[in-house]
Amino acid sequence: MVHKLILVRHGQSEWNEKNLFTGWVDVSLSEIGRAEAAKAGELLKESGLKPDILFTSKLSRAIQTANIALEHAGRLFIPVERSWRLNERHYGALQGKDKAQTLAEYGSEQFMTWRRSFDVPPPPIEDDSEFSQFGEERYADVDPNVLPKTESLALVIDRMLPYWQDTIAKELLSGKTVMIAAHGNSLRALVKYLDNISDDDIAGLNIPTGIPLVYELDEKLKPTKPSYYLDPEAAAAGAAAVAAQGQKK
Amino acid sequence: MVHKLILVRHGQSEWNEKNLFTGWVDVSLSEIGRAEAAKAGELLKESGLKPDILFTSKLSRAIQTANIALEHAGRLFIPVERSWRLNERHYGALQGKDKAQTLAEYGSEQFMTWRRSFDVPPPPIEDDSEFSQFGEERYADVDPNVLPKTESLALVIDRMLPYWQDTIAKELLSGKTVMIAAHGNSLRALVKYLDNISDDDIAGLNIPTGIPLVYELDEKLKPTKPSYYLDPEAAAAGAAAVAAQGQKK
Repeated sequence: MVHKLILVRHGQSEWNEKNLFTGWVDVSLSEIGRAEAAKAGELLKESGLKPDILFTSKLSRAIQTANIALEHAGRLFIPVERSWRLNERHYGALQGKDKAQTLAEYGSEQFMTWRRSFDVPPPPIEDDSEFSQFGEERYADVDPNVLPKTESLALVIDRMLPYWQDTIAKELLSGKTVMIAAHGNSLRALVKYLDNISDDDIAGLNIPTGIPLVYELDEKLKPTKPSYYLDPEAAAAGAAAVAAQGQKK
Repeated sequence: MVHKLILVRHGQSEWNEKNLFTGWVDVSLSEIGRAEAAKAGELLKESGLKPDILFTSKLSRAIQTANIALEHAGRLFIPVERSWRLNERHYGALQGKDKAQTLAEYGSEQFMTWRRSFDVPPPPIEDDSEFSQFGEERYADVDPNVLPKTESLALVIDRMLPYWQDTIAKELLSGKTVMIAAHGNSLRALVKYLDNISDDDIAGLNIPTGIPLVYELDEKLKPTKPSYYLDPEAAAAGAAAVAAQGQKK
């Protein structure tokens, strides 16, 4: 039996549009992001893939993407689970800062280290920062000691994998087609794990927004063939656009 | 401790707009319905009520209403459960028929009996009707023997109450503020139970669309005071509009 997994990175948010580091700050989709989500739903519908269960992060932009996509795919009725473990990487003290300004201020070496190094997190955010999630009700059901104040990709992997291993894997193994609506870095963490990508090579992997990425997995949850995007041309263009972020003037 | 319960009837659907009996047919919100849902979210936000968990039917129009309302209330992150037990009353062979035409064809006595009698269901729908839900994947997780082919309000109460008693009540009793996004008749069934309304009197109760109805319940889940709408004036106008349905030319 082939287990089907569909990954969707949320569409453009209001802060992507403004080129700000977002992380755990809860911003909504932009109008472009809503259109991307609708397109993701159309692609799903055309593909014949039928998600049986949805997993999302706790952040609005991923939830909105899933809601809009499932509406267009005619699958609003499926059950849904949300977890902070699928959240975007916490960007620490960079949250709320302009990417181009951060680049100018710290230089491209430090900037790229924070953005792309595997295990160097930015400085932690202060609890009293306006961009801190300290005390936010959204996370009231989570052990406060595990909630991050900054993260590297390595730390994202550490907190994402238990949710994959225990909760998402169970649904796949029971025969369900699973859809995950999440973020650039939580999805990179999962792709790294599924495709066994090295710590060095993951830096070069960019996941485009709003284009469903499909895995077909065997009974050991290993890919039976390379994963594929439902719109490969748009995916290639989208990945290039993500890679160019931060260089924006 | 006061337990807070928020009921929201979905906004106008594409078939409400066309004055067709809908029941279990899965139609989407109209643009007016989406605006109603957004307004419901604004009312929730202004009220200071913070739903901790959402229950919906399995029908798109209720799910869309909840999704839009929670987006406007800033509460997209809450957990959600869906059940066929919160679905609209199944309208049997009337599903897909024009209300005014049905009134003209069968006369107002039969029409009102089907619409408003407590325990007389319309004729059952045939499995091969284009408006039947027979075999629909949406209900693949439910014992096929319990899925209705027509329902009276009495039958809606019978299938709705177990979900209230076991699943929704548990969340209220654990201290959570519960939101239910559902339908005219599944909500009338619940209101009848909570307010102990007689079989005769429930015929006169109309719940307006898109206006949150709030219950404050004691430790025995009995109302501590009369339930109230977050926008009482709009609710009165909306209830009158619902009562006038079917008379539409």
